Parts: sequence; C-alpha cells; structure tokens
Amino acid sequence: MPIIDFRIRPPYKDFLNTAMYTKAERRDGITRSIQLQPSLAAQQKSVPMMLAEMDLAGIDIGVVVGRSSGALGSVGNDTVKEFCNCHQGRFIPVASVNPSDRKQAVRDIDMAISTGFRAVNIEPGGSSPPLHTDDRKLYPLYAHCEDRNVPLIIMTGGNAGPDLSYTSPDRLDRVLGDFPDLRVASAHGNWPWAHQILHVAFRRPNLYLSPDYFLSNMPGSEDFLKAADSWLADRFLYASAFPFAPIKEYLDWFRSLPIRPENMDRILYQNAVEFLGLARGTTALRTPPSEVRP
Amino acid sequence: MPIIDFRIRPPYKDFLNTAMYTKAERRDGITRSIQLQPSLAAQQKSVPMMLAEMDLAGIDIGVVVGRSSGALGSVGNDTVKEFCNCHQGRFIPVASVNPSDRKQAVRDIDMAISTGFRAVNIEPGGSSPPLHTDDRKLYPLYAHCEDRNVPLIIMTGGNAGPDLSYTSPDRLDRVLGDFPDLRVASAHGNWPWAHQILHVAFRRPNLYLSPDYFLSNMPGSEDFLKAADSWLADRFLYASAFPFAPIKEYLDWFRSLPIRPENMDRILYQNAVEFLGLARGTTALRTPPSEVRP
Amino acid sequence: MPIIDFRIRPPYKDFLNTAMYTKAERRDGITRSIQLQPSLAAQQKSVPMMLAEMDLAGIDIGVVVGRSSGALGSVGNDTVKEFCNCHQGRFIPVASVNPSDRKQAVRDIDMAISTGFRAVNIEPGGSSPPLHTDDRKLYPLYAHCEDRNVPLIIMTGGNAGPDLSYTSPDRLDRVLGDFPDLRVASAHGNWPWAHQILHVAFRRPNLYLSPDYFLSNMPGSEDFLKAADSWLADRFLYASAFPFAPIKEYLDWFRSLPIRPENMDRILYQNAVEFLGLARGTTALRTPPSEVRP
Repeated sequence: MPIIDFRIRPPYKDFLNTAMYTKAERRDGITRSIQLQPSLAAQQKSVPMMLAEMDLAGIDIGVVVGRSSGALGSVGNDTVKEFCNCHQGRFIPVASVNPSDRKQAVRDIDMAISTGFRAVNIEPGGSSPPLHTDDRKLYPLYAHCEDRNVPLIIMTGGNAGPDLSYTSPDRLDRVLGDFPDLRVASAHGNWPWAHQILHVAFRRPNLYLSPDYFLSNMPGSEDFLKAADSWLADRFLYASAFPFAPIKEYLDWFRSLPIRPENMDRILYQNAVEFLGLARGTTALRTPPSEVRP
Repeated sequence: MPIIDFRIRPPYKDFLNTAMYTKAERRDGITRSIQLQPSLAAQQKSVPMMLAEMDLAGIDIGVVVGRSSGALGSVGNDTVKEFCNCHQGRFIPVASVNPSDRKQAVRDIDMAISTGFRAVNIEPGGSSPPLHTDDRKLYPLYAHCEDRNVPLIIMTGGNAGPDLSYTSPDRLDRVLGDFPDLRVASAHGNWPWAHQILHVAFRRPNLYLSPDYFLSNMPGSEDFLKAADSWLADRFLYASAFPFAPIKEYLDWFRSLPIRPENMDRILYQNAVEFLGLARGTTALRTPPSEVRP
Repeated sequence: MPIIDFRIRPPYKDFLNTAMYTKAERRDGITRSIQLQPSLAAQQKSVPMMLAEMDLAGIDIGVVVGRSSGALGSVGNDTVKEFCNCHQGRFIPVASVNPSDRKQAVRDIDMAISTGFRAVNIEPGGSSPPLHTDDRKLYPLYAHCEDRNVPLIIMTGGNAGPDLSYTSPDRLDRVLGDFPDLRVASAHGNWPWAHQILHVAFRRPNLYLSPDYFLSNMPGSEDFLKAADSWLADRFLYASAFPFAPIKEYLDWFRSLPIRPENMDRILYQNAVEFLGLARGTTALRTPPSEVRP
C-alpha cells in the first residue's frame, strides 16, 4: 500500500525563514521530548536528504502545508506550489490563507483551488489579532469552503494561539455542527484535548484528526490510538509534521503500534485520499526517486 | 445479588418515535463503535425479546427514563408509567420534565412523585432554546427537588446539547455546590470529561455517575473504572442505556471488568437503591419472568 | 541524594485551626481514597511524630506552606517562620499572602523575602471574593514577583475554589505567557486537568508541577508520571501535602514508581532547589535528627 505523510514542511525557501528552521535548537528539543532523534535532513536543511528519508521510509506522497499568519511567520503559496512542481507527483500542495481578511481569503481560496492546490489551511490562533475557531469572522470562509467542497485544515492543536483556549474543542464542535458538509482536518488533533476531541469526532462525521507528533509520548496518545483502530479508523490521518518528527523513524514507530493492518492501511493512505478528494492510485504519478532533484 | 439497569428505553409506544428507534442504522453504528453487537430486541423493536434479554442477563429491575425535550423528541410520562405498570415490579419509572418552563416543570414533578415516579429526569441541552446545566432558569427546579428530596437525573454527557459546552463539568460542579442536598445522577457521566467529572465527584458527595455505554472502548473508561472500584464505589451506577448497548452482552462485559465483588454488587444494585430512595429488597416485588407479558 | 518534600503542613499552632486538622475524619477519608493509610502523626497532631516520620522516610527538608485566604482558613507567616526557626535547616518557609489586597500583598512579599522566606504562596480561588488565576487584580502581584525573581506557588488544583473553573489551565497558561520570567509552581498540579496542564508545561518553561497526593489512584496520574520521567523531569516537584498523605508511606510509594534514577533524584531534590533558588547542598544546614526538638 502507498503511504501519504499528511504534513511535511521541506527545508525550502520561505520555510527556511520560519521558526521550525531558524530555531533549530528549540525544534530539536521538542523532537527529543517526544523521544525521537532529530532528523539529519532537518538539521542540515537538505531537501535531497529529506527525499532520501522519504524513500527509505517508503513514503510516496507528502502533503506540503505552508503558513499565513502574523505570529508564526509565513510561507507563501508560491513557495509551496513551486516546491511541489519541482517534485511532480511526490507532493500535494495545500494553500494557506490569512483568515483575518475574509475577502482576500476567499479570493485566495478560489485562486489556489483553480491552480492545483488540493486543500486550504488556516491557523486562526496565529492571526493578528488571534481568532478562536468559532469566531464569527471565520464563518464566511467556512461557508465558502463548504459550498465549494474545499477540504479545510485547521491548525488547532498544540501551540495554536496565545493560550490554551485556541485549541478549545467546544469551539470546533460548534463550527462542525454549523457546517455539516465542510470536511475539516484538525492538524495536531486539538491536542491536548484528546478526550474531548474524540467525543467531537465521534459526533461529527465531518472531522478528521491528525494528531501527528503529539501522539508520541504525550498525554492522550493511547486514547487517540484506540479510536484510530476502531470507530475513527476512516478519519485518522498519518502525519510526521516534519521537521518536528524525523520522517522515517516516526513512521517506523507508528507502524509498530497495535493498529490492525486494514486500519493501518486506511490511516497511512486512503483517509488522506478521501479527505483531499483525490482519485485512488494517485501514487501512479510518482516520479521515481532516482529522478528526483531538489 | 439482584441487579438494576439504571437506564432502559423499551421499544414501546412513544419510545418508538424517538431517534433511538427510528434511526436504527445510526444507533447500531454507535453500538458497533463501542465494540458490541446490536441487540436483536432493539432491532426487532420487541418488548418480549427485551424482557427475555433481561432474564437471560439476570437483570431484575430496569429504570425507565423518558424524555421531554424539543430537539431529541419526547416520550411522555404516561407511556413510561403505563409500561412500568404492565410489568409490575420489573421496572421503575422516572418522570421527565421540560426544564424550560419552570412553573409547569414544578407542577409536573409534584404530580409525578405523587403518582409513583421515583425520580425526575431533565435534559437541559435538548430544550428549546438549549440550557446549560447552571442556567439560572433551572435553579428554581433544582431548589424544588432539593427541598422535597427528589433525586434528579441530568442527561449531561455525550451529545447532550448543540455543542460540547453542554456537558461542561464546571457548570455541574457549580450546581452541586449550590444545592448540596440535591442527589444528582449524571446520565452518560458527563462524558467525555472523565478526568474532570471524577474530580467533581471526588469533591461533591451528592453526585452519582452513570457513564453507561460510554464506558466501553471510549476515552476515560479506565479512569471511570478505577474510581468505581475505589472511592466512587458507592456512587457509581450501572446502566446499559438500552437500546444503545445490548442488555445481556453489555452486562457480561461489565461483570468481566476488574472490579472487586463487593464494589460490583454495590454498583449493580445497592447504589441505585440508595439514589432512588428505594427500600432494600425491592426485587421482592418482581413478577416472575414466566408471567411477564409485553 | 537528599530529599525535599515540597509541601508539608505541621500540626503546629495556626495549622491546628485549619480544616486539615479540625476535620480529621474528612481528611482521613481523602487519604484512604488515594489508597494510603492516614498518618499517625497527623491523627495525633504530634510534631515529634511527624519529624520521626520524616527521619524514617529519609526526608531531609520540608517546605512549609501556610495559607492566607478567607474560605480555607489562615495560617500566619509568623507561625510558619517560628516553626522553621525551631527546626533550623530542616524546613524552608514559604510566605502566604492574600492576593485580594494588592498593596498589602506587595508589602507582605517584600517583608517575607527580606526575612528569610524563600517563596510566596497564593490561593486565589480561596480569596473573598474568589479570584481566577488570570484575574487582572493579580497582575500587579505577578509583576512584582517576576521583577524581583521571587518564585511563586499557586494553589490551583483540586478544590482550589468554589468550582472547577478555578483550576482552569487556560487561565494559568495566559499568566505564564504574560510573565515569562516568573517561576510558578502549581500546587496540586492543576489536577484534574492533567492532559491540559501537561501541554501548558510543555509550552511554558516557567511552570513547575507538583501534583502531590493527586498522583495516587487519581485520573491522569499515568500522564503526569510519563512526563515526569521524560521532558518534565527537571520541573516536576515531589510533595506529600502532609497531613493528607503520610510522609513515609507516600514517599515509599513514589520511589516505587517507574521513574529512572537520574530523574527520580531531580524530582526528589534538585528541582525544588532550583525552583526556590537555593544553593546546592542546602542539606548541609540540617540539624542532626537526634537533636531535633519540636
């Protein structure tokens, strides 16, 4: 079965100016906290090494997510697109929009989707000023995505905003109820609200969870995994959140978890395909690793 | 030791018009999510089969809870009473009142208690408009029940309202502190707030927990069970929430849990007796199974 | 390695008038709930027995915390200081201030630090009226402590206020972000918000956690302990919260936990030394047990 890593940020152009690469020591500290070793590709900021890590791991496709927020730095959609174009078939671009300007956000969404981006990413807690996920300012954007069947990634877990309230599961529950046809993936899985977001996912079939590196050695991981191997098996997304977790070591760890093979396959590939609205067999497009150039 | 199932909704009259019977597929999906098989009695909407399941399980008494809320449908107290009367000694009726009309609610409570109902049930999150458990509109009702020693079941777990805030443990904590002599059972156990509601129960001796089917395969279940076998042993209530869990299979599973026999006995029987203010030996009233007619 | 118990309340003068000694039955009930046996020293209100328990356990230093709050009773700083002076080198005094009067609190802090207290303790949820930890009334006090490098203990776990909102991890997160150089120890570890406060600690390097007796048999304890043995090893504080847990039995239990020796040593001693800004080798001051007099 092919494998999709749902969150990869390559050491490329704009990405190199964000904290995940400029504050390498802090990043590697986080990696060690989750009991993994920092990726050499991340430390050396090397795209070829990152690709080699993917090859070694057997990861066919990476979903590349940029960033458009005041507080956390920015990675332009141009950078994301250019990177994905350089590695045809190996990466899927997701467009980030700044949710604090609804008119521009809507124009950016339309432009992005029409030029090959497969989903939209927002980080409301990182906006200036920070927005909670159920802020009414976001509702036109949610409506726009729902009406056009555009899948939406919301970064609303971990350090999603200035304080813990920006990962509130109550607020996301409200949004999901108000837009029942909007497919939402929670990047970082609303961690640390594991118990609560699992309830929300149990209740709302339009929510996908991608707890990524917070699964490793963090509170709630057993709960996430138990759900991943039962009722949430078709809405759980695998992601390394590279460069925070090393691509290969993290996948090795994840595959060692007690998840049944049929569910593991869904989590590693099919769920991302369905969330993104891709055709099955997307990996056919994959450029042979030997031909990949940074 | 006799056994009481604290939450049973039989396939009878008004019950058949609520979502738990009209949306059978959704219900059975929930049952499978908690890793149990749907009850044949539920699927075939058969009271005799439900009684047979109780007999097979060895359940002596079922607590029958109706519903009086806008959003979730209604089951009249007449239906509940009639059903319990048809099966003398086998079922205990709980009266549901609509908490959004305080004057009518108070009249309904008085009427219900004077005609043999043993407790009152409210579902504030299902009212129109939905109410949080600490809404001031509910305070006259809480005061009325506290003053008259009427035990109160509040459905404030799972999908108790339009969003997760309707199961907030903060709010219930406030109510329990403001009415220290009011006995409250939290139906669905304020799930998914397992950690938090266990704190509230640790602090408030007037709170009983009945997490029912959310115990099975759901986040927080280990925490609930550890408390059930220690400091919460005298305030934990066993319930299947039939038709969501099958009566016999769920009891078999529950009895297999690592709970010490003396605590298991309390949980399966004595705690419900005390909460409801019944005399010990209530099962003496039980009609022999062979004579039970739907 | 020497051992510091970060929270001890001896049966001495003002302490004897607080609920932890006047309501012995309630206290012993809590002790049994966490599956420990009440301390004889607590039951007999005997300082010599408490000292003997410390000796037997091998605890070198106890941090003595008083209380200045309306709802929970008061233990004057004079009492705390006098007790510590009577047992030179064996106890470290922490000054409690009433956070509801900012001018007096600031004066009290300055006085306390200048007379040998090593930290300040506040219990905002016990004030009259109760304050949440991010109440703006507390901000001058936080600023004062941050500017003067005074470590602050906030009792914001367990029954910290009239309801569960007084242990809100969102609120403490906000404070820690607003005062990044203020060292804060959360007494009772913001229990029951184990998942959430661990996120806050992961994010805020100025937070120390001291879940004390809520570690034993309580929801979230596995999560606390997993963090204590990995990324939180240098900010986890050991405390019995005597008289709620027995000094020796609780330490024996704690030492039996699966925490690696190097982390166990940090937790039992070095973290408290660093939090309090003590010089290493503080135990050199210790009066030999044989010479200790109550």
